[in-house]
Amino acid sequence: METMAGMRRSCGCGKVTENDCGKELTLAGWVNTRRDHGGLIFIDLRDRSGIVQLVLSPQYGEEAFHKAEGVRSEYVLAVKGKVRERSADTVNPKMKTGKVEVVVSELRVLNKAKTPPFYVEDGIDVDENVRLKYRYIDLRRPEMQNHLIMRHKIVHEMRTFLDENDFLEIETPMLTKSTPEGARDYLVPSRVNPGKFYALPQSPQLFKQLLMVSGLERYFQVARCFRDEDLRADRQPEFTQLDMELSFEDQDFILDLMEHMMQRVFKKVLNRDIEIPFKRIKWDDAMNLYGSDKPDLRFDMHFYNISDLLRDTGFKVFRSVLDNGGVVKAINVKGDAAIPRRELDGLVDYVGHYGAKGLAWIGFNEDGSLKCQITKFLGEDKIREIGKACEAEKGDLVLIIADKPKVVAQALGELRLEMARRMNLIDPNEFCFRWVTDFPMFEYSEEEHRYVAEHHPFTAPRDEDVQHLLTDPSKVYAKAYDMVLNGVEAGGGSLRIYQEDLQEKVFKAIGISQEEAEQKFGFLLDAFKYGAPPHAGIALGLDRLVMLMLHLDSIRDVIAFPKTQSAIDPLTQAPSTVADKQLKELHIKVDIKKEKDLFEKA
Amino acid sequence: METMAGMRRSCGCGKVTENDCGKELTLAGWVNTRRDHGGLIFIDLRDRSGIVQLVLSPQYGEEAFHKAEGVRSEYVLAVKGKVRERSADTVNPKMKTGKVEVVVSELRVLNKAKTPPFYVEDGIDVDENVRLKYRYIDLRRPEMQNHLIMRHKIVHEMRTFLDENDFLEIETPMLTKSTPEGARDYLVPSRVNPGKFYALPQSPQLFKQLLMVSGLERYFQVARCFRDEDLRADRQPEFTQLDMELSFEDQDFILDLMEHMMQRVFKKVLNRDIEIPFKRIKWDDAMNLYGSDKPDLRFDMHFYNISDLLRDTGFKVFRSVLDNGGVVKAINVKGDAAIPRRELDGLVDYVGHYGAKGLAWIGFNEDGSLKCQITKFLGEDKIREIGKACEAEKGDLVLIIADKPKVVAQALGELRLEMARRMNLIDPNEFCFRWVTDFPMFEYSEEEHRYVAEHHPFTAPRDEDVQHLLTDPSKVYAKAYDMVLNGVEAGGGSLRIYQEDLQEKVFKAIGISQEEAEQKFGFLLDAFKYGAPPHAGIALGLDRLVMLMLHLDSIRDVIAFPKTQSAIDPLTQAPSTVADKQLKELHIKVDIKKEKDLFEKA
Repeated sequence: METMAGMRRSCGCGKVTENDCGKELTLAGWVNTRRDHGGLIFIDLRDRSGIVQLVLSPQYGEEAFHKAEGVRSEYVLAVKGKVRERSADTVNPKMKTGKVEVVVSELRVLNKAKTPPFYVEDGIDVDENVRLKYRYIDLRRPEMQNHLIMRHKIVHEMRTFLDENDFLEIETPMLTKSTPEGARDYLVPSRVNPGKFYALPQSPQLFKQLLMVSGLERYFQVARCFRDEDLRADRQPEFTQLDMELSFEDQDFILDLMEHMMQRVFKKVLNRDIEIPFKRIKWDDAMNLYGSDKPDLRFDMHFYNISDLLRDTGFKVFRSVLDNGGVVKAINVKGDAAIPRRELDGLVDYVGHYGAKGLAWIGFNEDGSLKCQITKFLGEDKIREIGKACEAEKGDLVLIIADKPKVVAQALGELRLEMARRMNLIDPNEFCFRWVTDFPMFEYSEEEHRYVAEHHPFTAPRDEDVQHLLTDPSKVYAKAYDMVLNGVEAGGGSLRIYQEDLQEKVFKAIGISQEEAEQKFGFLLDAFKYGAPPHAGIALGLDRLVMLMLHLDSIRDVIAFPKTQSAIDPLTQAPSTVADKQLKELHIKVDIKKEKDLFEKA
Repeated sequence: METMAGMRRSCGCGKVTENDCGKELTLAGWVNTRRDHGGLIFIDLRDRSGIVQLVLSPQYGEEAFHKAEGVRSEYVLAVKGKVRERSADTVNPKMKTGKVEVVVSELRVLNKAKTPPFYVEDGIDVDENVRLKYRYIDLRRPEMQNHLIMRHKIVHEMRTFLDENDFLEIETPMLTKSTPEGARDYLVPSRVNPGKFYALPQSPQLFKQLLMVSGLERYFQVARCFRDEDLRADRQPEFTQLDMELSFEDQDFILDLMEHMMQRVFKKVLNRDIEIPFKRIKWDDAMNLYGSDKPDLRFDMHFYNISDLLRDTGFKVFRSVLDNGGVVKAINVKGDAAIPRRELDGLVDYVGHYGAKGLAWIGFNEDGSLKCQITKFLGEDKIREIGKACEAEKGDLVLIIADKPKVVAQALGELRLEMARRMNLIDPNEFCFRWVTDFPMFEYSEEEHRYVAEHHPFTAPRDEDVQHLLTDPSKVYAKAYDMVLNGVEAGGGSLRIYQEDLQEKVFKAIGISQEEAEQKFGFLLDAFKYGAPPHAGIALGLDRLVMLMLHLDSIRDVIAFPKTQSAIDPLTQAPSTVADKQLKELHIKVDIKKEKDLFEKA
């Protein structure tokens, strides 16, 4: 193998332009393809910046030509050569460098390469486990490189914006204390303190609040967080959030700041103008109108509550739902009245996955007739009345679900999304931001027979709701906000409680005793006694946000080395067994249940 | 308690200037001090930006005045008031805002505060454990805030520089694979994969090399790293490094790039001009001349090797050292001939701590006489000859150590530093950079009876030394470099091996079998088969670098929430015991030896 001794790259392969014609350049990169044609050898040389065509001929450089004969895909080369214009018939308009080629006078083979397990090109159809096992090849593909480049740019732009706005990036510990609230912790046994464990942070929440008590005023961190939860497609055991906290400002200030940050990042990185301020919608309204606290509002198709219209109906199905605290809601799918019956049956199955026991439909046919399986129970007048309530015109399809409020919200919400996809209502290039505000402070846990904090127990209640804290927690809403982008939660935060008496009330409302609070969050509560300022914060899920900005479907495509859904890295084979000596030093033993026990539990 | 509802801060307390006179401002912050004087109340209000004086009088605002009567240190206030010039006799030239004061018309007490355990002021003398337990108070002190502000600025400037130079910040995994080479790993038990463990990264070394194989070309990361080693003053279980790797460039390019980065950071953050290029010194020379691979060259005082001068001496002490492969070296402490005898005896003890069995001295008195305890063994001629060799003039003190080369290097090296401190040769404001290059590739491990890699086994040997790899590893030097600042290693890196045959030779040289290599680094070696480019990297220890830039003595002063030397966080009490349920889920058991065993082992 040869080295680059004495050579220095002139520029990236993808940066060669017509302006370089006549110049001698030094380039380096990977052989994307090699073609032999008419006694010449053509090599597409690829580096991070792009691809350029090399031409070799014994006439231009005999030694280089002979070396090129032995060259195969993914070999690493360094070359010297003169740039020239391609002849008109060989110009490649699809390539950025398609008007030029480099006539090679010197070629060095820096390294050979085995045949890669899949092509280094975009749009491949390869099992993801194979891509992850050979991630170093997968990451050579221009689209994957672009994801990481964009991610870098997005995060760098955020940092610059926050720096300009007087935020300090402050690192908080990774080896910290296990707090039993929240998700499951990853634990790290301590060698020096036998029997004791650190926990990897689920978020820097407590530390960033401590930094506010410290008077640092404006903090941010691109923070790695860890949750040992069962993984779904958009979750990873470790993930990254843009974590922020600031003092002495209110909700409007924070939302405004975030909007300006997003506007700046979208403009600078994607060259896209996004409109600010983002529209805001209260949690109650989002749930009532779209059945979701993260509604996709690239299209409307909101819910109509037709419960009142049906209270007097004799139709047993609706009646019993309404009598038992349920609701009847509908969506109007514009222009879909001609939907085939078989498809409607499919929709019944679809909502069934989300717990809905049935689905009623009313097609308002173009000829004025109705396509409806419940006319016989309600009468045509009632059906027309429902149509009016749902603003249905000729050609529209109204879909109705009657069930418990939670079920209606979820099933009709999912149906709304599904119908929008089928009707092509979603512009894949659009970015639709919303703030969802005024979340409920508590959720009643059927399991624990008590109210639990919807966010975390440091979230501040709305001033006007404080009176209900100890009498009816269900009436208390929080100063909390989520940033929603295209129907995905991109981030969330809240104003925090910073006054002792209010914090005590909140703990009381969720049945946490003073003693328990001390044990779990004692150091934060102590800190609050020494002069805590009013403060608030937000955290954006960076992996997800980058994924959305690049219109991708998986966060694994914006993470260099992600893990599978079994939390395994197919490349390094982490996690792995370790030496007994290591465990001994950490004062722990592996304690695997017998297979039988495992099966019994599963 | 009151809120800031309807208020918005005009600016930071420390930003109020004479130009604001007559304006009404809204300020918020902590009560630094309160003084009652002549019927008025004076409050120094402090926030991150500084301190400003508030004046309250019943005449300016009766309610505000009465609230101020109840205010104590560290209460959190928001105030409205008009800025006015102070009268000439009350101007405080020590304060940035000392020419003005704010006449308060409205005051809100946002929060009360208990009396803090120590004063919120610079230069306090408080036990560090107390400072760490109440870190949120400690971090209110202006000097601590400044450390974090400077750290933020330094790191932000580095990022901006690297971004401008086409480096991509790419996050690598924290939950990764345990590799038995190197320091002790922190382990994280896997719940989903019973009996298996992740390791927290000691550095992103393997991943950054994989990114080079991926063709990302220029990578950096402000990376948290973990080493479960016994802690010294300048070590933490988790620390941060600026980690970099790049392809297709040589050592000169990297060193030059780092020099420009440091120059830029020093200029932008500290407004200090530092000279580049940094001088380079080879490892052999550094060891020979200063006894250290990280020499402090803010002063010279290099070693003189006087072995040859003494080979023919009859003086048994020197003779037996020289006959047994030892060396005799000296330093010349200019102008210290008048050192008292008692102090010289102290120096003998001092070098004794570093293993030197003795110390000889020659004082060249101003009157031409000698102060020397070995004249009787060597004769005055020889002593004068030594003086000449050491360039000693009247008034100088020559200190001599004879021992094994390693002992001389360490003991005389430490003595050199100690004498420089005593002679006040070190300008505490100077920044003296050096590159130490050409490190030995291997070190002979007496313990393992084999050569081991001095850096890591992917460091490339110098081209001219490859021939000795399998015959005499001691002759092989590496393409490795350390950045040294004021005698502290601020970072280090190397060119990497990227060719299979060379890598195999190196493994062979340190007795790692093909099989063992596969098992430990298999995925990296595999990756290298698919077209690895020439690449190199460096990592700077950020905590240490920031500490040096701020002229501090402890890295704990530039880390927001550091741990003690027992790896404990006195604030959160991490690490802690955890619930049995947590351990069960992770398939591990605590396995503490009985106290008796622990004692026996200790």
